[in-house]
Amino acid sequence: MALKINEERLLSRLGAVSRIGKYKTGIHRPTYSPADMEARRWLVEQLGSFGHEAFIDGIGNVVGLGPSAPRRLLAGSHIESQNHAGRLDGVLGVLYGLELAQTLAETYGAGGPAVDVMAFADEEGHFHDYLGVRSALDDMTDAERAAVVNIDTGEPLQAALEKAGLAGLPRYRIDPSRYAGYIEAHIEQGDYLDSGGLRLGYVLGIVGVWQYNIVFSGQQNHAGTTRMVTRKDAAMALMKFGAELDRVMGEAAGPRSVWTPGRIVTMPGAPNVIPERAEMLFQFRDLETSRLEAMERALLELAGRHDALGPCSIVVENMSKAPPVPMAPAIVDSFERAGERLAPGAGMRMPSAAGHDAQYVARVMPAGMLFVPSIGGISHHWSEDTRDEDIVLGFRVYAEAADAILAG
Amino acid sequence: MALKINEERLLSRLGAVSRIGKYKTGIHRPTYSPADMEARRWLVEQLGSFGHEAFIDGIGNVVGLGPSAPRRLLAGSHIESQNHAGRLDGVLGVLYGLELAQTLAETYGAGGPAVDVMAFADEEGHFHDYLGVRSALDDMTDAERAAVVNIDTGEPLQAALEKAGLAGLPRYRIDPSRYAGYIEAHIEQGDYLDSGGLRLGYVLGIVGVWQYNIVFSGQQNHAGTTRMVTRKDAAMALMKFGAELDRVMGEAAGPRSVWTPGRIVTMPGAPNVIPERAEMLFQFRDLETSRLEAMERALLELAGRHDALGPCSIVVENMSKAPPVPMAPAIVDSFERAGERLAPGAGMRMPSAAGHDAQYVARVMPAGMLFVPSIGGISHHWSEDTRDEDIVLGFRVYAEAADAILAG
Repeated sequence: MALKINEERLLSRLGAVSRIGKYKTGIHRPTYSPADMEARRWLVEQLGSFGHEAFIDGIGNVVGLGPSAPRRLLAGSHIESQNHAGRLDGVLGVLYGLELAQTLAETYGAGGPAVDVMAFADEEGHFHDYLGVRSALDDMTDAERAAVVNIDTGEPLQAALEKAGLAGLPRYRIDPSRYAGYIEAHIEQGDYLDSGGLRLGYVLGIVGVWQYNIVFSGQQNHAGTTRMVTRKDAAMALMKFGAELDRVMGEAAGPRSVWTPGRIVTMPGAPNVIPERAEMLFQFRDLETSRLEAMERALLELAGRHDALGPCSIVVENMSKAPPVPMAPAIVDSFERAGERLAPGAGMRMPSAAGHDAQYVARVMPAGMLFVPSIGGISHHWSEDTRDEDIVLGFRVYAEAADAILAG
Repeated sequence: MALKINEERLLSRLGAVSRIGKYKTGIHRPTYSPADMEARRWLVEQLGSFGHEAFIDGIGNVVGLGPSAPRRLLAGSHIESQNHAGRLDGVLGVLYGLELAQTLAETYGAGGPAVDVMAFADEEGHFHDYLGVRSALDDMTDAERAAVVNIDTGEPLQAALEKAGLAGLPRYRIDPSRYAGYIEAHIEQGDYLDSGGLRLGYVLGIVGVWQYNIVFSGQQNHAGTTRMVTRKDAAMALMKFGAELDRVMGEAAGPRSVWTPGRIVTMPGAPNVIPERAEMLFQFRDLETSRLEAMERALLELAGRHDALGPCSIVVENMSKAPPVPMAPAIVDSFERAGERLAPGAGMRMPSAAGHDAQYVARVMPAGMLFVPSIGGISHHWSEDTRDEDIVLGFRVYAEAADAILAG
């Protein structure tokens, strides 16, 4: 049966939700802020308008449950934004889910396949990355949640939930047995699609992120009287290491690997004092574990070499190793088949270099993601945007793929 | 006439003053602290014990004026310490001056040559580098002084002076016409003497210090989704520049030049964000202006090259250019002649790589400095020390040189 897709309604809803917490051409909707809560209530209302049972749970997740159905998908993403950021990051996936749920309801009526919709709270981590999806998967303890505070203001999570009227509400738990799978659409955030003239990204998986703190220890001394040959200058050691690190990472990297020295600090940090300590926060990302392992080997080998060479000692502390999360091949295939049918040659298989709620949901059910282009690859900035025709094409591909998955 | 040198008294006084604010084997006497004021009062008492007119002035300078004399030297240094620092840094020069004044009084009696002694307040800059000597030379305005606060606590200078009982006292002004010159002894703070097995440093001058803030501007972006080829990573640019900077400085440097990247900061400094800005506080020192100029050329040439290469822009902001301050050749010669007579081959001509009160006094009269070794080159740490035999030899050379200068 041909899906009764309503492009105007999709774009009109996108326009409506973009006015909530509007900032320039983007939005400013930090988690649990009045604007964020207004957007959540708006979503509940939209989901209810075609018969979904919709509510906000005790962590702020918006849940929209369809009627009983022979086969069912879960669709979602997040509706809060980074500070002064784009109107589509997260929101697009939620609106695709909302629109898909209504499209299926209008196409098949009662007793047909259905889609439940969720907007997971705080994927963006104003309080804690993936707070909502981890609550819905029971992946976080009460004690862990009790320690969470706003990263900018220090406000405890509990206080923010009370202010938002969410304290004491039950937290919704996903029942994986209910679903054939989870789908999430998102803007790419990078520029592989946009710079390649492509319109659809079939996400193979979400890259692993390995993080390190690299510590250089030297000796604090007088910046005037200490001879160059006797110095142990930790800042100088860090810079020499960093310049080579870029080279060895380039050699170990795959075509899509990325690596970033996010922060450098030196101690004591005075003009007349040779730094005795310097630290670099360093991370790299790739979809392949073997590649991440090769990059780690290159990092450790270089650190060992510089440490042995002196004059400063180098310690590489691993801080985290978030593993790559592959998407379910059957869902990747469904997106690609729908894309090739509707826009032949306009899509590519690609990793997601950013994290998404899907990486958590993938633990309990088959999950897949579809990307639409970000103009210029802009992300986490109010000027982030995507062309309407790409938004509409993306939805058609998303809906056709979902329809095919639900047809089994 | 042979000088009536009293080595035991010198060492005994050093022992006495080291007990004021004692910290481990060093001292903790921040400027205007109770311990610092006690040391200043102790010095006034010692100066008065052989007839000098001694007092503490309105900025904390201790002034000891000898009787009328046909020829007169000014001798000094500072008596406060860095936090938890050595017992000799500054104190040695003050005690040499004190001992010299008494030695001359005891050797020549009334009507002979004399030495005035000063302990300049806050050379170490707990409030402001060279606060005392600049006051004595009228080199600082009331408005400048009114803005001075403690660099650790933020306490205004005026409040500290009140607490120390100094507020309202007149500030003493040096009359240069009174003196044949200024002499200052100091521990070396570096390890040229100690590592070379030498015991005396004849200071040629105090190095110039040129300081820069080097700013790297890139583009803030997502550390996952931004391709390596499109990145403008300011931290990476800084590290590549810094590694090369060390090399080009080495090429432009003279045998005693030093260069230090005292502080590095990156912004915004988050693990998942490519830094858009990185800054390096950088300084270099040398005794020769032509050498400083060559080092600056090398810095600017490298910055220009990296800036042109991209992807980040580089701006080099000069923050200060303290010029080298040569010591008076006649005083250098006097120290060297006395040293060669008392300990042939045990000394060397050398620059001072650290700043001293002498660099200010040199503006108004011939000035010279004598160094004794620091064991292991340790400085600004309580474990700083010098052997008693080097302290005694240093004083003998200092006194003989002063005697020769006063003999005209």
